[in-house]
Amino acid sequence: MSLGKQFIGFEQSGEGTDVLKSINPATGETLAQFSKATSAEIERAVAKAAAAFQVYRKMSGKQKAAFLDAAADEIVGLGEELVNICCAESGLPQARIQGEVGRTAGQLRLFANLLKEGSWVDARIETAIPDRTPLPKPDIRYMQIGLGPVVVFGASNFPLAFSAAGGDTASALAAGCPVIVKAHSAHPATSSLVAGAVIKAAKATGMPDGVFSLVFGDGSTAGTQLVKHPEVKAVGFTGSYSGGKALFDAAVSRPVPIPVYAEMGSTNPVFILPEIAKSQAETFAKGFSGSVTLGVGQFCTNPGMLIYEKENGAELTTQLETQFAQTAGNVMLTSGIYKAYNQGVEHHLSVAGVETLAKGAQSDALNTASPILFKTNSQVLGDNPQLSEEIFGPTSLVVEAQSKEDILNIARNLTGHLTATVHGTEKDLTDYKDLLDILEQKVGRIVINGFPTGVEVCHSMVHGGPFPSTTDGRSTSVGSAAIERFTRPVSYQGLPQSLLPDELKNSNPLGIWRLVNGTTTNGTT
Amino acid sequence: MSLGKQFIGFEQSGEGTDVLKSINPATGETLAQFSKATSAEIERAVAKAAAAFQVYRKMSGKQKAAFLDAAADEIVGLGEELVNICCAESGLPQARIQGEVGRTAGQLRLFANLLKEGSWVDARIETAIPDRTPLPKPDIRYMQIGLGPVVVFGASNFPLAFSAAGGDTASALAAGCPVIVKAHSAHPATSSLVAGAVIKAAKATGMPDGVFSLVFGDGSTAGTQLVKHPEVKAVGFTGSYSGGKALFDAAVSRPVPIPVYAEMGSTNPVFILPEIAKSQAETFAKGFSGSVTLGVGQFCTNPGMLIYEKENGAELTTQLETQFAQTAGNVMLTSGIYKAYNQGVEHHLSVAGVETLAKGAQSDALNTASPILFKTNSQVLGDNPQLSEEIFGPTSLVVEAQSKEDILNIARNLTGHLTATVHGTEKDLTDYKDLLDILEQKVGRIVINGFPTGVEVCHSMVHGGPFPSTTDGRSTSVGSAAIERFTRPVSYQGLPQSLLPDELKNSNPLGIWRLVNGTTTNGTT
Repeated sequence: MSLGKQFIGFEQSGEGTDVLKSINPATGETLAQFSKATSAEIERAVAKAAAAFQVYRKMSGKQKAAFLDAAADEIVGLGEELVNICCAESGLPQARIQGEVGRTAGQLRLFANLLKEGSWVDARIETAIPDRTPLPKPDIRYMQIGLGPVVVFGASNFPLAFSAAGGDTASALAAGCPVIVKAHSAHPATSSLVAGAVIKAAKATGMPDGVFSLVFGDGSTAGTQLVKHPEVKAVGFTGSYSGGKALFDAAVSRPVPIPVYAEMGSTNPVFILPEIAKSQAETFAKGFSGSVTLGVGQFCTNPGMLIYEKENGAELTTQLETQFAQTAGNVMLTSGIYKAYNQGVEHHLSVAGVETLAKGAQSDALNTASPILFKTNSQVLGDNPQLSEEIFGPTSLVVEAQSKEDILNIARNLTGHLTATVHGTEKDLTDYKDLLDILEQKVGRIVINGFPTGVEVCHSMVHGGPFPSTTDGRSTSVGSAAIERFTRPVSYQGLPQSLLPDELKNSNPLGIWRLVNGTTTNGTT
Repeated sequence: MSLGKQFIGFEQSGEGTDVLKSINPATGETLAQFSKATSAEIERAVAKAAAAFQVYRKMSGKQKAAFLDAAADEIVGLGEELVNICCAESGLPQARIQGEVGRTAGQLRLFANLLKEGSWVDARIETAIPDRTPLPKPDIRYMQIGLGPVVVFGASNFPLAFSAAGGDTASALAAGCPVIVKAHSAHPATSSLVAGAVIKAAKATGMPDGVFSLVFGDGSTAGTQLVKHPEVKAVGFTGSYSGGKALFDAAVSRPVPIPVYAEMGSTNPVFILPEIAKSQAETFAKGFSGSVTLGVGQFCTNPGMLIYEKENGAELTTQLETQFAQTAGNVMLTSGIYKAYNQGVEHHLSVAGVETLAKGAQSDALNTASPILFKTNSQVLGDNPQLSEEIFGPTSLVVEAQSKEDILNIARNLTGHLTATVHGTEKDLTDYKDLLDILEQKVGRIVINGFPTGVEVCHSMVHGGPFPSTTDGRSTSVGSAAIERFTRPVSYQGLPQSLLPDELKNSNPLGIWRLVNGTTTNGTT
């Protein structure tokens, strides 16, 4: 089996002899082999990215948009070849992967449209007042610019939408930053195909060599080398707490610290309030069981905890038992993830006061998770805070509370999460307004009468949240606001019109929305 | 002499016996004494801030604006008493302090107006499409909310505008965050007066106890306790590299890391291009000498380095010699700052290849700096990178370059700075477009044909820059964009209209600008 190569900009390179195997988790079969990047190859990728930045940052929004649109087209154009290898590497079913191809292309096009529209740069203009007293007011103009080369770590659980050309890559490229992807070791063949498509799009649209690179390797070696490199200016990551926190620690201890946007997942608590718990027990239990086991529970927004008051929960508990028993598992992304899932399940089983409420279909197939629903009470949860930590997979913990105050206390003790979900009638929600106030301070997104899985890619999405759900709760990794992670503002004072970027010229040639002398306008100045 | 007390919210407290002396740097006289905060007092201030956050965060923009406006009025109302004590503590002249009172009030009012207008929250709305296929689109709404209690470290060099109720405090309060100020030890009496004014305003406008506190103490004890406190969510700081970096390191190594916005100053290089160097030598030399010595050189944006090509600089060098000789120093803020200035000057004098080009008026008065202008060449600068580090005070280093390429190389080797300044005719600027491109990546603000001192407080200002000028180059500490440092976005999915914040209701009761289904509008939805 020949060794697949890195994409060091437009060059394919496989100098190393260390091998990364692409494994089918359902069969254990080796699908392909890849050469892990050498230190010299990584150095070259970064040098190319730094050089490309000088060209790419000066390209217009429309030029960058053409690149992103072309990348979307090329990825979609990979068709069945991509779907097949991605399914084989990830164990995920075809319909899911087909959907993910669409989402990946959709994200690239969302950012392309953001660039074509152009107002995202947050342009601000204050014109001069030469005769102001006691001092003249200078002409000052402000906009966001790209930070520089960004390193993206592909996620295991979205082999397309949060990997080689996923949300982090799309938002960084949109911000004007070249990207070096450290491919996730669970799907190197998928990453390689996608990288080839991105490179083809880059060439076709006249992008500089180095605007995109993809390397294979381990987080602790290749990953650390990338994060520590002086020319790297920011990092995007989706994965485990230990992985994300290690990158954060490496980045803040550099001689020049850089931002790390690590989305590290969370337990995503769900609260069901009295009226709904009683009136909608069956519907809720069905929806909840589906959300817990969707994609074998391998979502960052998987609802890992369900809280309700015991006195309203008799019917609900019965329905959860019934509905959850009808779920089934499937093969997990990797054998490592499967092992970690089982360890998490065993931990819960070992805690006194935690019982098994229901089990989904049990399976002995290779790396195939068996869904399990646990039940405990608020007292046991309070005594065993590790019960509130995420188990990545098709499981959740039902927590019976004694009272509304008990529910509020559980909420107050939450650490940072990506989402919190509340099910309630309008009366429930009004009665529990104080719960919503607490949750707003704990999460990036509050979901009412829905489920947290299924993250809409749009302008108003926050897929982020306070630590430890991410390393930077001031940001989102999904949706158009993700671009803000990779930019910084710059002011130009007294620069002649001819030398100003188009975004800041009086004539407003791009027709973008700007704050001009304190007034929001898309007109000229 | 009785001991001045902390402001622990609305309570004045002086439990400690450690004493902080307010010293007049011009005379060495002790003006007043203050009790340093005990650990218990700091704990109480944070607990009050955390409790106040729950009330303050829910107040409307107009209510918060009334508080900020009232604080501005109260500070201005302190009149001569404030100006006199501030001049005595800082050694700064009356006109400067009177101007700074105006700037401080102006900053508070700028943020009050931002809150009254309301669009700063970056509201985004995407309405539901229940019949979308394959999945319904949910209703999702996004806005910025405050992070929680913020600790502000007062700056030595702006005893009003970047101290107790300065830019960091104003922007954090505007963001909805209670503030605990660690007063700078160089002007405790000024800080105490201002804190009293803020508390008076808070009471008069119905703010919760704990929305503002001010404590005295040392950075390494009181400061560290504040930054490490779990209820503290962000830090604002203006001061030295060593001080800011220590806070950053403390904050990122917390169990829950928090952002630190430390503005640590910089050398603010100035480039003068060939045509202007020849045609405007006298005017430039006069302006430059004034900028270097303004406020005894005690500005973060003080121009500490001047670069030009030797072959164009004969007349300029002569004029700098002449003009700089006419400058005078004055008493510095503290004896410590005076000592550090002299050490910096002595270091420059000790480097082979660095000569004294000119000296301002020499003085033997207590803590009074004597301006000095150094000269070297690009070779010596390259061999002695520490020459490019900031000396806080009335001094600058003239660097003769050999060629345009030499100039570009100096620019490429710059670390992060707050500002870079370029003087040139339109032809010069066009010829040196590549210099501007390099500088844009090194600084937060590019100044053309002006001087970096005199930072305009407005919407389009960036007073920030890449590390080491700040610990977070994605932000500004001056101007209305400073509010963004203390917020994070939150999404509400499916929340009923009645429970949505006014900023996100369909009826747009605040009339703010929002992004609704991708379109910028200040109308209803």
